[in-house]
Amino acid sequence: MKIKKLGEDHIIDRIRKTFQTQHPRIIKSIGDDASVTAITEKRCLLLTIDSLMEGVHFERAYTPPYYLGRKAVSVSVSDIAAMGGTPLFLLTAMNLPEDTEFELVEELYRGIKDSTTEYGMHLVGGNTSRADCLSITTTVVGEAERPKVAYRAGARPGDVIHITGTPGDSALGLEILKEEGLAAVEKASCRKVVLKHLNPVARVGPARALAERGLVSAMVDASDGLLRDLGHLIEQSNTGAIIECERIPLSQEMKDHTETREHKLKLVLTGGEDYELIFTSPPGKREDILLVARRFDITITPIGTITEKRGIKVLDRGKELRIDTRQGYQHFVP
Amino acid sequence: MKIKKLGEDHIIDRIRKTFQTQHPRIIKSIGDDASVTAITEKRCLLLTIDSLMEGVHFERAYTPPYYLGRKAVSVSVSDIAAMGGTPLFLLTAMNLPEDTEFELVEELYRGIKDSTTEYGMHLVGGNTSRADCLSITTTVVGEAERPKVAYRAGARPGDVIHITGTPGDSALGLEILKEEGLAAVEKASCRKVVLKHLNPVARVGPARALAERGLVSAMVDASDGLLRDLGHLIEQSNTGAIIECERIPLSQEMKDHTETREHKLKLVLTGGEDYELIFTSPPGKREDILLVARRFDITITPIGTITEKRGIKVLDRGKELRIDTRQGYQHFVP
Repeated sequence: MKIKKLGEDHIIDRIRKTFQTQHPRIIKSIGDDASVTAITEKRCLLLTIDSLMEGVHFERAYTPPYYLGRKAVSVSVSDIAAMGGTPLFLLTAMNLPEDTEFELVEELYRGIKDSTTEYGMHLVGGNTSRADCLSITTTVVGEAERPKVAYRAGARPGDVIHITGTPGDSALGLEILKEEGLAAVEKASCRKVVLKHLNPVARVGPARALAERGLVSAMVDASDGLLRDLGHLIEQSNTGAIIECERIPLSQEMKDHTETREHKLKLVLTGGEDYELIFTSPPGKREDILLVARRFDITITPIGTITEKRGIKVLDRGKELRIDTRQGYQHFVP
Repeated sequence: MKIKKLGEDHIIDRIRKTFQTQHPRIIKSIGDDASVTAITEKRCLLLTIDSLMEGVHFERAYTPPYYLGRKAVSVSVSDIAAMGGTPLFLLTAMNLPEDTEFELVEELYRGIKDSTTEYGMHLVGGNTSRADCLSITTTVVGEAERPKVAYRAGARPGDVIHITGTPGDSALGLEILKEEGLAAVEKASCRKVVLKHLNPVARVGPARALAERGLVSAMVDASDGLLRDLGHLIEQSNTGAIIECERIPLSQEMKDHTETREHKLKLVLTGGEDYELIFTSPPGKREDILLVARRFDITITPIGTITEKRGIKVLDRGKELRIDTRQGYQHFVP
């Protein structure tokens, strides 16, 4: 059977079952944002790998190579952030068609360099290979104190679901880029969401602060879309969730650039690549969470509650939306 | 300028210069088989990344997916081996065209599973993405005791150059596969070299034993061909080398399947993907090295000497060969 008939989740599930593995040093293997393995009694290593492929994750027509380099770093750093960890080292595998201009490669690496510097990380290794299509694979190695790691599992019924930032902006930015091309970067009316797509920044500081202060029962990064990533969190936590759409904060750009409520909700609930955080907290932590939000100058908004009943119930103005909660970005959609 | 006019070595050199980085925990960054970073005072982390691309590193017509999975693991493990380290954890980024049969994916993962098990490693993370062409990127995380790590730098004039196994066999196996297809796997006359290409095994045990016993002044794995990888070693060591071709051991298959001395030497000196070890030792270590060879049932052969004078001098039956010693596998050949 062809994999597009099976779906990405099915494939990952099969891989996870094949590789169920027991080892004293493996604390968490496949199934979270990053793997967690013991270094010492107190510290652990966080490992993650991601790819950006031309024609799948980006089109050259609207992707400046400098931003592509930055994004390649951020998508993997975001996985480390979602565990409450500190990113340390980067490895890149760069696959390049042989007629690629060297200037593009230099711009890519300039983006990688600036981004790693901003995250306080170091590129320590790489591989360059000829290929038919341009792609970058990044591995980020991070660290955390073992008791402070935030897993997808850990949410309990009654916990409050929070998100950072305004979801759907990256997907909106992509829609605008596809329509207007790179000129959109210069337009004040949409620059913010377009850059949110081209140059997302992983929430390393806030995530670590939340995890260190014990404000997180479970966390995941929003890479595949709010519903799908929340789905991963509740699946690992063996719980369900209720989301109230009217509590989800919208950016001014989202309000201005979408005409129908349906379009808004589609972007907000299923648009991927925001690289914001979705996390749950025991009730009564709102004040402490707001302190973190203020310190990092971001918004953190409660949008729903963890439930005992499985599945995600999406309420919009009191009415339940009929929505396939597995929606969001899947590579192979069954 | 297009990258194919610049060459892979030039690109890597530019990247290395861009990312020259100082950090108390980084012991060795880009420029060796794997990066070396401190975990504790005594232990260090070894990190490496590699890609296998369809149409560049393999063709589906003569590459059973099971072997492809195994090889994807071994090529990265070989980098850890070349540092004298122990491979621990694997991450894979699998890029798959959406019309890929799921059976192929299962076979790939069966190969990855068997190979990681044989190396005593664990797959801890992965990423699956849609792509136009099939490729696998592997990151292997290993460990070593800090004083025992074997670097490319460290060779001194007078040191003896050794190789494990019989070089060129993988390149010969590839020639046979291209000519005869997969049927060649079943032929006793060439099965060994064909499998050397499809299913190389990294020399983890011998490399670690050599490094632990202090028998290695410098080491590199033979992935790009004898001359090119030895070139990397002497460049990092700021030395030169003399190689005596008649001392290089030839497999029976190499003797049987090549008609001219020119063909033999081309395969032996520039054929890539053997994943054997090239290492240097101070003189007088032959007995200890033979003990390691016997213990692991492999051949280890002295083939030349490290010199003060830069460059590689290749002697064949007393005559100097005129040969571009940068030959070997380069992704972008200028």
